[in-house]
Amino acid sequence: MPGNTIGQTLRLTGFGESHGKAVGGILDGYPPGIVVDMDYIQKQLERRRPGKSIGASKRDEPDKIEILSGIYEGKSTGSPIAFLIQNQDSQSGDYDQISRVYRPSHADFVYEKKYGFADLRGGGRASARETVVRVAAGAFASLLLQRLNISIIAYTRQIGELMLPPDYSCFSSDQIESSPVRCPDQELSEKMIALLEKLKEEGDSTGGIVECQVLGCPAGLGDPVFDKINADLAKAMMSINAAKGFEVGSGFQSVIMTGSQHNDSFYTDEHGNIRTLTNRSGGIQAGITNGEALVFRVAFKPTPSIGKLQKTVDKSGNETSISIAGRHDTCVVPRAVPVVEAMAALVIADHWLRNLSTKYFVNL
Amino acid sequence: MPGNTIGQTLRLTGFGESHGKAVGGILDGYPPGIVVDMDYIQKQLERRRPGKSIGASKRDEPDKIEILSGIYEGKSTGSPIAFLIQNQDSQSGDYDQISRVYRPSHADFVYEKKYGFADLRGGGRASARETVVRVAAGAFASLLLQRLNISIIAYTRQIGELMLPPDYSCFSSDQIESSPVRCPDQELSEKMIALLEKLKEEGDSTGGIVECQVLGCPAGLGDPVFDKINADLAKAMMSINAAKGFEVGSGFQSVIMTGSQHNDSFYTDEHGNIRTLTNRSGGIQAGITNGEALVFRVAFKPTPSIGKLQKTVDKSGNETSISIAGRHDTCVVPRAVPVVEAMAALVIADHWLRNLSTKYFVNL
Amino acid sequence: MPGNTIGQTLRLTGFGESHGKAVGGILDGYPPGIVVDMDYIQKQLERRRPGKSIGASKRDEPDKIEILSGIYEGKSTGSPIAFLIQNQDSQSGDYDQISRVYRPSHADFVYEKKYGFADLRGGGRASARETVVRVAAGAFASLLLQRLNISIIAYTRQIGELMLPPDYSCFSSDQIESSPVRCPDQELSEKMIALLEKLKEEGDSTGGIVECQVLGCPAGLGDPVFDKINADLAKAMMSINAAKGFEVGSGFQSVIMTGSQHNDSFYTDEHGNIRTLTNRSGGIQAGITNGEALVFRVAFKPTPSIGKLQKTVDKSGNETSISIAGRHDTCVVPRAVPVVEAMAALVIADHWLRNLSTKYFVNL
Amino acid sequence: MPGNTIGQTLRLTGFGESHGKAVGGILDGYPPGIVVDMDYIQKQLERRRPGKSIGASKRDEPDKIEILSGIYEGKSTGSPIAFLIQNQDSQSGDYDQISRVYRPSHADFVYEKKYGFADLRGGGRASARETVVRVAAGAFASLLLQRLNISIIAYTRQIGELMLPPDYSCFSSDQIESSPVRCPDQELSEKMIALLEKLKEEGDSTGGIVECQVLGCPAGLGDPVFDKINADLAKAMMSINAAKGFEVGSGFQSVIMTGSQHNDSFYTDEHGNIRTLTNRSGGIQAGITNGEALVFRVAFKPTPSIGKLQKTVDKSGNETSISIAGRHDTCVVPRAVPVVEAMAALVIADHWLRNLSTKYFVNL
Repeated sequence: MPGNTIGQTLRLTGFGESHGKAVGGILDGYPPGIVVDMDYIQKQLERRRPGKSIGASKRDEPDKIEILSGIYEGKSTGSPIAFLIQNQDSQSGDYDQISRVYRPSHADFVYEKKYGFADLRGGGRASARETVVRVAAGAFASLLLQRLNISIIAYTRQIGELMLPPDYSCFSSDQIESSPVRCPDQELSEKMIALLEKLKEEGDSTGGIVECQVLGCPAGLGDPVFDKINADLAKAMMSINAAKGFEVGSGFQSVIMTGSQHNDSFYTDEHGNIRTLTNRSGGIQAGITNGEALVFRVAFKPTPSIGKLQKTVDKSGNETSISIAGRHDTCVVPRAVPVVEAMAALVIADHWLRNLSTKYFVNL
Repeated sequence: MPGNTIGQTLRLTGFGESHGKAVGGILDGYPPGIVVDMDYIQKQLERRRPGKSIGASKRDEPDKIEILSGIYEGKSTGSPIAFLIQNQDSQSGDYDQISRVYRPSHADFVYEKKYGFADLRGGGRASARETVVRVAAGAFASLLLQRLNISIIAYTRQIGELMLPPDYSCFSSDQIESSPVRCPDQELSEKMIALLEKLKEEGDSTGGIVECQVLGCPAGLGDPVFDKINADLAKAMMSINAAKGFEVGSGFQSVIMTGSQHNDSFYTDEHGNIRTLTNRSGGIQAGITNGEALVFRVAFKPTPSIGKLQKTVDKSGNETSISIAGRHDTCVVPRAVPVVEAMAALVIADHWLRNLSTKYFVNL
Repeated sequence: MPGNTIGQTLRLTGFGESHGKAVGGILDGYPPGIVVDMDYIQKQLERRRPGKSIGASKRDEPDKIEILSGIYEGKSTGSPIAFLIQNQDSQSGDYDQISRVYRPSHADFVYEKKYGFADLRGGGRASARETVVRVAAGAFASLLLQRLNISIIAYTRQIGELMLPPDYSCFSSDQIESSPVRCPDQELSEKMIALLEKLKEEGDSTGGIVECQVLGCPAGLGDPVFDKINADLAKAMMSINAAKGFEVGSGFQSVIMTGSQHNDSFYTDEHGNIRTLTNRSGGIQAGITNGEALVFRVAFKPTPSIGKLQKTVDKSGNETSISIAGRHDTCVVPRAVPVVEAMAALVIADHWLRNLSTKYFVNL
Repeated sequence: MPGNTIGQTLRLTGFGESHGKAVGGILDGYPPGIVVDMDYIQKQLERRRPGKSIGASKRDEPDKIEILSGIYEGKSTGSPIAFLIQNQDSQSGDYDQISRVYRPSHADFVYEKKYGFADLRGGGRASARETVVRVAAGAFASLLLQRLNISIIAYTRQIGELMLPPDYSCFSSDQIESSPVRCPDQELSEKMIALLEKLKEEGDSTGGIVECQVLGCPAGLGDPVFDKINADLAKAMMSINAAKGFEVGSGFQSVIMTGSQHNDSFYTDEHGNIRTLTNRSGGIQAGITNGEALVFRVAFKPTPSIGKLQKTVDKSGNETSISIAGRHDTCVVPRAVPVVEAMAALVIADHWLRNLSTKYFVNL
């Protein structure tokens, strides 16, 4: 059964293996008449590229997007937008070992169990290479959201035990993008870099947390009861490689609070708008956006590809050990930042478009 | 756009408001030939009922399920199974205040923003009353899973700051169901009860964590790249009322581990099966089950309905305060346990059925 | 796999067997704020009832619709609308024979092949009883379309060899509804009645054609390339019991025409609107409505339940013969008229709502 | 809303404009382990190519399929199969006129109404060029069906008034493919060729009927009540460019028959299988295949692109006339034959895979 499609009104179907000819996708339901800034889209792909951030693998591919359909004279036509990014730098030799040995916490074992066999050169369909498709499609969604004055910003909240303070609030794009680990705090950023360099030397890796904010999102997005905006965000985020957890607003911290501590009191602001004094809800109540900043976090596990020797078995079940050489991120978090933004853009744009049919007769 | 459907091959569409005539659903894609034990299904509804666990509201409804179609002579026919549970004990008067005031961290404000108006008597569509539909449908899914020797067990891992130790492992159904808060550890259970009673007296509430394990699940369930089993579980769980976070296996704890600490090494067990020594993956690698126990957790916020006086605004935006009387759970966690189980059963059964088309030619 | 759902933005999921407790459905995606005229809906159910038209079976059920959710104080709330119609007049005894013998051109054989067994009392899920759900949901859709000044009218074009002339054009609701066979021409109507009475006496049946027009439909509905409006109409119509053919505009007659005869020339009308001189396209070009009247036809086979003795086999494969007594329509066409209208309303309303997301940025 | 996807378990999403870079698609849900004969697939594309049959346009493109993903070492992997066919021979100049004038019975007017503007060079998304994607995906589906001993054969039943006799039954692939108009009867074929040549000279066109048979299809495919196999076939066929009508088995002819004439009597054949003496049902009862040959017909209108002068209006609404030069089929039917086969293969393969989850517990 097909699992390569996400979204309802704005719908992405992706394809591609790490060492196949190309990765790409079809974005269907993209409204006609949107001016498509290809430089913006290409720039997002650059942000995801390996080597562009510390802790990232050195695989060097230009990741140039090619548009095959759906755009004419610089504008979307309403027809499906097909795009692809060629794979250029595949060195299958690097991965020969995986044809004999199951790498711990990798896709090898389960893909073989599910499909009988698999093209797992470079990770195949399970490779993080696949996320370039998310970023490309998300960039299209972001262009649509920009027309609606909705913006999305993500950043590294934590790497290993190094984390932003709970009350940190200075999140500018410049601060984030100037940090090789995409952490907005310069001092913390430097500590993170040092940690990643130390781990790299040790042939080890670590995990971390990406936080994301959606600003300017109108109240009313999200569809009870199963397509709550937090449910669709959770699915989108947990579908990213290496994601282990998702939380919105106060998240797991909410469990030790009392209701009187946790509830967000309403007030009327100077413009007469009804707002909440706090935002423990993370911009969502009952699965529907409330007009406050939408805030959520995604936890990523340590990269499973490490140089350190690990125990495992070969495909005949015999004990062996493995040391995974090659170009691997020491921590996926810096490169996951644009992926999280992209998936958020797809979910929000989809729900914004979905909501048009709910709003129509309400507004009359 | 419709958000009241979940699942692909096994698909639940739900309906119903808290103070409407009935809540119910249609379960489509349920395979023909399954013996349907109605006592088992009714028993699951009992487990969810208010008043059956400490910290629960006192609303007393028999919650008797009525089957309208899809079952004949005790077996499923392959036609859609329609079911409903009448609403009997609605006292709209209790909720008159909400027609005038926005309750903090409740659905009132966002439903009005989205729909222009809403039937929010008793919470309307946003009421936890809706979860009875999930439990009923999940019980059907569980019967199917039992045929396949897959079992699901959930329990209270944490209420407020009271939590099971990380290495706790004695999870028997009896231990769990004999605890009014569904915590398998008797001593901890008693402390939780005391905490909830204290909070009730104070007119306050608290949050907690439900942990769930799926046992006997075969390797190979889950569909890359967007319908990873963890992604679909995340969506299902985050669609439950009051859920604020979801994590699988090591979850948020994974971020402070190194790859060498976190990876699950493979070994061959005494039956010649390839297994993992640890289960930080929570039974899932690359979005596909690996045959180990599937383990995940859901964080629930403190119940927003509290007796303590809270600041808010009325529908004209004027400052006011509110004390929410009535029958409300002090903590949703004990009653959320069967809801989490039900949603897990729906997701696993759906993916098990989906996987048949993947497996067919592999097995030939 | 679930086949009981139709529509995307406006989505009907149906349930129910002929001799089960009830038939009904959930209509999800119905916009909030629509005033729901229950008398109108009930009236549509009356039109479908057996005994209300010549050639119809005598089964007498009030077919009273019960609304379980989604409507509050006379208006739709945006929550799913669940409705059911109780089954009251089931006489299983009438159908005992079918537990032993396969009725020619009936569902018995294929349901048993597909499901292993089936509840086929009264036809079970395959009974025309199921169409009451279509009519109820279609009535909701029609109320929405009335708000948009779109109207739908269907009528009997042909029964047996008796047909309206090709250039017939006097289609008023009153003319149609005053005819027991729903044929707008009184003289032809009387001939049809005589034919049906003769066939009834002979224990035989016949087929016919329903024609349907959608008036006031704006240009722009329908989504290339698979969800062309004619494709979705074709599916909706061919899903009705006993439907054997579907055509739009010139339909099968177009094949003997030349392009120069068939093409609809454009002209500018007195209001400055671009129109077509003829309507062989049936209001659809390239799968998208063009603003002209949408015209299509559905062919229905003769009712397979006949009193005349037919050869068949029993479930052990032994030759036998069968005469089907009981309450059966001599011709399904008169009662199919409101069913065709209902399915058309569901398709048009769905596409109208879908089109909102396409139009949004075009209109800016 | 996205309309470029068809199928549930086997799901095709297509893209591409006539004069864009490429047309192509993603076929998701294709089971792993199928040996993919690329020569077979390429051969199907050849069959659809212009110039390969009489009455076809002379546009000459190699239509070489490129596979981007989902196939490894000659076998399907279970990952989505992405494919594209480059557009090479586009001469936009041929189509300049359409930027000023609405061609009668063409997509120009409705695309502009729906999308505000459109890339209609060569017909854009509405061009028959798009059908190459259907044929490619259908060829993959056919390979799957061949593994299951299900075969599909289509042919030209009628062009203009020239038609096969009702009782014609000699349908061999060789006979069909050796005819430039894909009509199995050689004498009729020659008359059709003469007709098309005469019409071409006159700058005119004509319509026709494609008939299709699915042989070896097991009983049990199709899902009540909306996803009847005839309903899904109807949608698939009516989504093909220029299709005006669809009928199954006796189709429109059934309306003048009596039930006693029309019903297919059951008998037991020499192998002990229950069969029907006649096949007016076209292999389908109650929307489910019954094991007999599945037979249906699709009516295609005359090609709207004709050299003869036609009245129309320009985009300002002024009266004008147009003569459409260029490479256009005189009749779409010969080239529609492989398209009809392809869409049938997609529908049958999808339902075959869907049916696995229904059958599983029945067979236990």
